[in-house]
Amino acid sequence: MNSYCVATYRCFDEKADFNKKALGIAVGLTVGSWTDLPEAKKAAMERHLGQVISVSVHEPDGPGETAADRYADIEIAYPDVNFSRDIPALLVTVFGKLSMDGRIKLIDLSFSEDFLSGFPGPKFGMQGVRELLGVHDRPLLMSIFKSVIGHDLSTLREQFYLQAAGGVDLIKDDEILFENRLTPIERRVEACMQAAEQAKRKTGQKLLYAVNLTGPTFNLLDQARKAIASGANALLFNVLAYGFDVLSELSRHPDITVPIMAHPALAGAYYPSPYHGIAANVLLGKLMRLAGADLVLFPSPYGSVVMPLAENMAIKHALLTEQAEDYRFSGTGADSDNAVSKPAGASAGADGKRSTLTLQTSFPVPSAGIHPGIVPLIVKDFGEQVVVNAGGGIHGHPMGTIAGGRAFRQAIAACQAGIPLQQYAAQGHAELQAAIDTWGIKQ
Amino acid sequence: MNSYCVATYRCFDEKADFNKKALGIAVGLTVGSWTDLPEAKKAAMERHLGQVISVSVHEPDGPGETAADRYADIEIAYPDVNFSRDIPALLVTVFGKLSMDGRIKLIDLSFSEDFLSGFPGPKFGMQGVRELLGVHDRPLLMSIFKSVIGHDLSTLREQFYLQAAGGVDLIKDDEILFENRLTPIERRVEACMQAAEQAKRKTGQKLLYAVNLTGPTFNLLDQARKAIASGANALLFNVLAYGFDVLSELSRHPDITVPIMAHPALAGAYYPSPYHGIAANVLLGKLMRLAGADLVLFPSPYGSVVMPLAENMAIKHALLTEQAEDYRFSGTGADSDNAVSKPAGASAGADGKRSTLTLQTSFPVPSAGIHPGIVPLIVKDFGEQVVVNAGGGIHGHPMGTIAGGRAFRQAIAACQAGIPLQQYAAQGHAELQAAIDTWGIKQ
Repeated sequence: MNSYCVATYRCFDEKADFNKKALGIAVGLTVGSWTDLPEAKKAAMERHLGQVISVSVHEPDGPGETAADRYADIEIAYPDVNFSRDIPALLVTVFGKLSMDGRIKLIDLSFSEDFLSGFPGPKFGMQGVRELLGVHDRPLLMSIFKSVIGHDLSTLREQFYLQAAGGVDLIKDDEILFENRLTPIERRVEACMQAAEQAKRKTGQKLLYAVNLTGPTFNLLDQARKAIASGANALLFNVLAYGFDVLSELSRHPDITVPIMAHPALAGAYYPSPYHGIAANVLLGKLMRLAGADLVLFPSPYGSVVMPLAENMAIKHALLTEQAEDYRFSGTGADSDNAVSKPAGASAGADGKRSTLTLQTSFPVPSAGIHPGIVPLIVKDFGEQVVVNAGGGIHGHPMGTIAGGRAFRQAIAACQAGIPLQQYAAQGHAELQAAIDTWGIKQ
Repeated sequence: MNSYCVATYRCFDEKADFNKKALGIAVGLTVGSWTDLPEAKKAAMERHLGQVISVSVHEPDGPGETAADRYADIEIAYPDVNFSRDIPALLVTVFGKLSMDGRIKLIDLSFSEDFLSGFPGPKFGMQGVRELLGVHDRPLLMSIFKSVIGHDLSTLREQFYLQAAGGVDLIKDDEILFENRLTPIERRVEACMQAAEQAKRKTGQKLLYAVNLTGPTFNLLDQARKAIASGANALLFNVLAYGFDVLSELSRHPDITVPIMAHPALAGAYYPSPYHGIAANVLLGKLMRLAGADLVLFPSPYGSVVMPLAENMAIKHALLTEQAEDYRFSGTGADSDNAVSKPAGASAGADGKRSTLTLQTSFPVPSAGIHPGIVPLIVKDFGEQVVVNAGGGIHGHPMGTIAGGRAFRQAIAACQAGIPLQQYAAQGHAELQAAIDTWGIKQ
């Protein structure tokens, strides 16, 4: 019995026969040719043949739409037998050549159980990160260094301490801090973890420091080992600059004993166009989780570098869903007519029962433009399972960086208690009040 | 004295103050903040500060243009001291966060001499590939397997022989052929190289077989060693699925003793949008050559999967230019006003003299939609320094695959002799005549 991974494309064309186009994809990206094969050969090749699952045409008859808005969403099932169990093989198969074929965007991926079984997924995941921190009952708070380039160890150490002392749960390196003479990774980790210890004596809380893993690809594992040996308890990684497979191999490696935080650097080269690229829920959602990211940063819908809320919610769903059916395609090769039998309940497994995804969840980290007055919106959109991530909203607090952290923790506490921010601030929370006076409350 | 790498962006915005935006990029992606730094600190930080080189605003006053067409081309110089000598560090610096900031596309990159010196470039390059083949005086001819998935070794061997016997110089694997039970890489190489020997006895000519290098990233070097030990004399690599750095590390590794052919799979996720992504000349031109690709495939302007001719010519230029100034930014940090002094002659080095780029050239391989009747166009656009690459145009020849190769070699010979194809075909070149009868001649 054949199993398949399924790619969904949105394909724009003013006059294409989309059914014909879908068939062309299914054949062209698998066995190459079909109708001219002898019947005997067809029988042998059928297990390698791609299958058209669905074609939904959107005719441009809405108000303001023109012929250029005509598109179809096309689902193609690719036999697992055609590719190895790695993300480069899957992406090259489903969107290698096809990405260059006109106005076409990869908008979803589903995986066969067999393909999924090749991916252990996040080693820690959301629950694992919570366990490391001992915090289970509220959104986490993360802080980003204000500026790091050109600064020495003592300056970074001081910045780190001020962030930690305000009560943040995680601190991340700037993603543009590479190996450099002023703050090489081992000494940076040592200095920052000392500052973390110092802050812990004051706050009593644990903290994860995600140090930026950089340099030549074939040296990353050694670099990570060095960082961990120096005391690093998390890693930051620019996944898209290195490829999903590197994350996948790092995350599953037994020597990587700390969570990996995926940074979305370069993601804007892929997701924003409606006509080209790879949708955010695939790029920063499903593939990041599959490759083993324990936390995933992505542009929030709240600041200046924005992503629409609907796309944020699609990423959140991809990172947090526990329904196997959201990741899995359970159709099987049928006996005839080159058709794949799709299970009756589209959201249920082959046996009709819902089941739990074996991949751990990844912590969503909507980023950019976050200040304490936005926390209620974040909680409304994401619930408790979110990392509130701020840079300027902490360092720019009028009472200083420590107060910046406190104002966020107060905002989070207010949300947990179900008390409006303004009212909570008035109950003697001066740092939150000052933050509200500075940035307001976003509704 | 500071040295810089320079990124050029095309940034669309209906009403932005582009000078302010440029300054925001230059500061925000380097030192983080500037105007609020104390003067003493500024002196220390100046060497880390990004610099605005130029801002050219295009106001939408042309026929048919609307406010949405307003853009600026912005050049920003990034101090080398801020990043390590690898492509991920450079890309994350210049287009990491920025890629997600509205309608902005990375359209060019220039490198400092210091940054360039970290990259040996193509190990063979165009000349090296010609020397391996012993062919110096004509465009090369490459053939692509017709279909490979689901076929066994003997079928591949036969396909290989038919291609080789027609007189092609290079044969490449299909990029979607991964490690599989039917044709594992070592046995595939052995079978195909035997077929190459057999054909050589007939044609007398050498041949390179680019076998697809696939699988987990950290295993690629071993996989390449196995292929080379089995007789592989070239490698095909899906660069964008793995990241430029992997190509860079493979190409410079002493154990990789064969040319690497870069496949553009997934490139369409980056280059086609005018508003987002990375331009083709950067993605498939400069970065491929910098990372060490000896040959680079890209969509031709001739077939159904098309790239505009101007973009093809920009890629060709990036792969073939020997002018150092096309790759190098020679501006230096000035003493005051945060300005970078740009050399007077924009296309000359700091000393005003032109100089030769140390990187070897990469062979351009425009691909898709190629038949013998297109060869004169290819030669017109690319000159002799090109690989004519065909799949269907060889296998689909009415007299068979061997005749398909011969027809192309005849078309190339006609161009070299300066004889129109039709006339050359009439001089007793039946294979070319049959090709013209089938596909015509494209003007």
